[in-house]
Amino acid sequence: MPCFTIDARDPGSRARAGRIATAHGEISTPAFVPLATKATVKGMLPAEVADLGYQMVLGNTFHLMLNPGAELIGRLGGLHRFMGWDGPIITDSGGFQVFSMGHGTVAEEIKARPSRGRAGSDEQREGRILAIEEEGVRFRSYMDGSVQWLSPEGSMAVQAALGSDIALVFDECTPFHVDRAYTATSTERTHRWLRRCLAWHREHGPPGQLVYGIVQGGVYEDLRRESTAVVAAAGCDGVAIGGSLGACKEQMYEVVGHATAELAGAHESLPRHLLGIGDVEDLIRGVELGIDTFDCAMPTRLGRHGTALIADPESRWRVSLAKSRFAEDASPLMDGCPCPACSLGLSRAYLSYLVRSKELTGMRLITAHNLAFIAQRMRSLREAIAEGRLAEVAAALRSGAPSTACFR
Amino acid sequence: MPCFTIDARDPGSRARAGRIATAHGEISTPAFVPLATKATVKGMLPAEVADLGYQMVLGNTFHLMLNPGAELIGRLGGLHRFMGWDGPIITDSGGFQVFSMGHGTVAEEIKARPSRGRAGSDEQREGRILAIEEEGVRFRSYMDGSVQWLSPEGSMAVQAALGSDIALVFDECTPFHVDRAYTATSTERTHRWLRRCLAWHREHGPPGQLVYGIVQGGVYEDLRRESTAVVAAAGCDGVAIGGSLGACKEQMYEVVGHATAELAGAHESLPRHLLGIGDVEDLIRGVELGIDTFDCAMPTRLGRHGTALIADPESRWRVSLAKSRFAEDASPLMDGCPCPACSLGLSRAYLSYLVRSKELTGMRLITAHNLAFIAQRMRSLREAIAEGRLAEVAAALRSGAPSTACFR
Repeated sequence: MPCFTIDARDPGSRARAGRIATAHGEISTPAFVPLATKATVKGMLPAEVADLGYQMVLGNTFHLMLNPGAELIGRLGGLHRFMGWDGPIITDSGGFQVFSMGHGTVAEEIKARPSRGRAGSDEQREGRILAIEEEGVRFRSYMDGSVQWLSPEGSMAVQAALGSDIALVFDECTPFHVDRAYTATSTERTHRWLRRCLAWHREHGPPGQLVYGIVQGGVYEDLRRESTAVVAAAGCDGVAIGGSLGACKEQMYEVVGHATAELAGAHESLPRHLLGIGDVEDLIRGVELGIDTFDCAMPTRLGRHGTALIADPESRWRVSLAKSRFAEDASPLMDGCPCPACSLGLSRAYLSYLVRSKELTGMRLITAHNLAFIAQRMRSLREAIAEGRLAEVAAALRSGAPSTACFR
Repeated sequence: MPCFTIDARDPGSRARAGRIATAHGEISTPAFVPLATKATVKGMLPAEVADLGYQMVLGNTFHLMLNPGAELIGRLGGLHRFMGWDGPIITDSGGFQVFSMGHGTVAEEIKARPSRGRAGSDEQREGRILAIEEEGVRFRSYMDGSVQWLSPEGSMAVQAALGSDIALVFDECTPFHVDRAYTATSTERTHRWLRRCLAWHREHGPPGQLVYGIVQGGVYEDLRRESTAVVAAAGCDGVAIGGSLGACKEQMYEVVGHATAELAGAHESLPRHLLGIGDVEDLIRGVELGIDTFDCAMPTRLGRHGTALIADPESRWRVSLAKSRFAEDASPLMDGCPCPACSLGLSRAYLSYLVRSKELTGMRLITAHNLAFIAQRMRSLREAIAEGRLAEVAAALRSGAPSTACFR
């Protein structure tokens, strides 16, 4: 039975609104998925994340297998119970993190801009990759220096122990700087690993767990299309788009477009996840291109570092509260935002002071604000598709419309 | 008009239950006052602190005058508005922090044990004291190295700008290692400073702001009694007990007892605050000795460092969750505790993992737990006095009774 129901389509784009059914409930799409890389949305409690309107979070195979260990989480009742989140959980396969070690500092280049990507650079104090083989990958743990092994089967076994609602297959995340030949070879291995993941899951996967394949193929249209076709035909429950998406946003949109174009028609009912992307303009464009779910470290990571999301495309949607110009600013961060800082009317001066003083409360407040900001925009996009007004709402959001209320 | 109403007295001790009326509402006593040293209860939002049952928080003159500055907070509408707390606020005078610099590492010795005392050692990266004069104290700011001046009048002016509900007078906090002669001389200066504070406040204090005097006198009974009598007769709205309370808990109880004995009778209606004390057994004994309010960095500081308060006197009421014996412990921290971690049923294993991973969420959860733990015990004591059952309840609490529910 397909896990995805499409409720509405935008006539002017590939956008659709729908619902993904999982063992722990539905996700209304299009949706953003906050990172709970290490079994917590950093600084937030589960109920707070849910109250902001989020229905799913993303845990990470690589980090959780090293600490505290998948077996332990399994013995303690699985990741949901471990972290106190009873909604859907998607787990990344660890491929991105393992290959980030191998590809060294190009991890951030993968998404073609700094401090971006799956699970994020400040969570990554990875060890060192020791060998990439057909069978899997050998690497040194950043926790204790021990030698670890991750394979397609191993990644699926970890995700089975975690008990996530959606598992991602183990892939090689090809970086941006490699050539077409490497990308083609790597993508073919990713496809062989896809089949091994699915075979393992058919045999051993926990009942009800969905599996998404991962499309690779770098920036090459034919490789992307071929990879998409392979993943779509393999019998996955959904499709995730990963790897190098290009050198600039326009190229990224092209690459994503190749994949979603290939998924039109026969494979329309597969839900589509775009890995590691979360900038406001990318979310809007991704929705127009037919993406259903997104994850990104950006809102939470920026929050911990004192950068707040604001409705201003001119300032790249963000503002660093540590700047001295906020030191005496009595105005709140944003009107109409439901986050604690904005609804309490706390001043930018206070938030700036907390950030400069490195107070936990500041990290918390700005993290919550950023998640509220993204949640509001995703809700606007969902409602717009249902109401047949996506073009209008997308334009308003792009121009920096302050909140959902403005569209109604 | 007296600010304090005594509603019930314990027949077997000096304990009393009552209400302190302030410009921002009442405080039911006996009560613990969480620290908001730097305009936030670290990691907590105001509503969460209130939801745990706290009615008042304590801000700090010394830290807030250096950063972000009292004038700025004043311009932004005062400390309540700045930090989003609309209940009562008491502000410490800065005396303790300034003299901690002068007395160097003996700051922690003052309360005769480590990591204790007003505003706490891990908040203290103080600069250096330059001169202690009759007029006031000159010191170097830990923020920017600038030379700063704090005097009785200056401390009251800062507290006026902050707009606290209860201001504390500026005192010399005499350390434990000085002799009787120094203590006597210092206490006399503290009394002169008390009169200057009250004179300034009569002229310039904000309407409705209460002023507590501070009793010094070290561990010497006659000096303590004399200091108490001087403070009680000076026209303060309440009395705080500060300075060196001795080398061990028994001596501390004696010293506190000298002060509260002296306050019996004519000065009974003055509310009594014990500065920098918050261990469970000290709270119980303090209540029996007639203390109405307490403040201490302990619950919040321990929480940030992964130590949880538990109902077990054998383990000094605390447990370090980083210990490996909790790594696989599926049980929650404590039954019947209303904090998020306990009410979600999060395992000790998860909390231990968060602490070892230095996750913000862990600091938050354990801080909230510790404040919930102390709030529950204070409520038990308040209710016990009202019900004439203090001896029974105090004994149960001392023996590690798990929660209020056990006494009903």
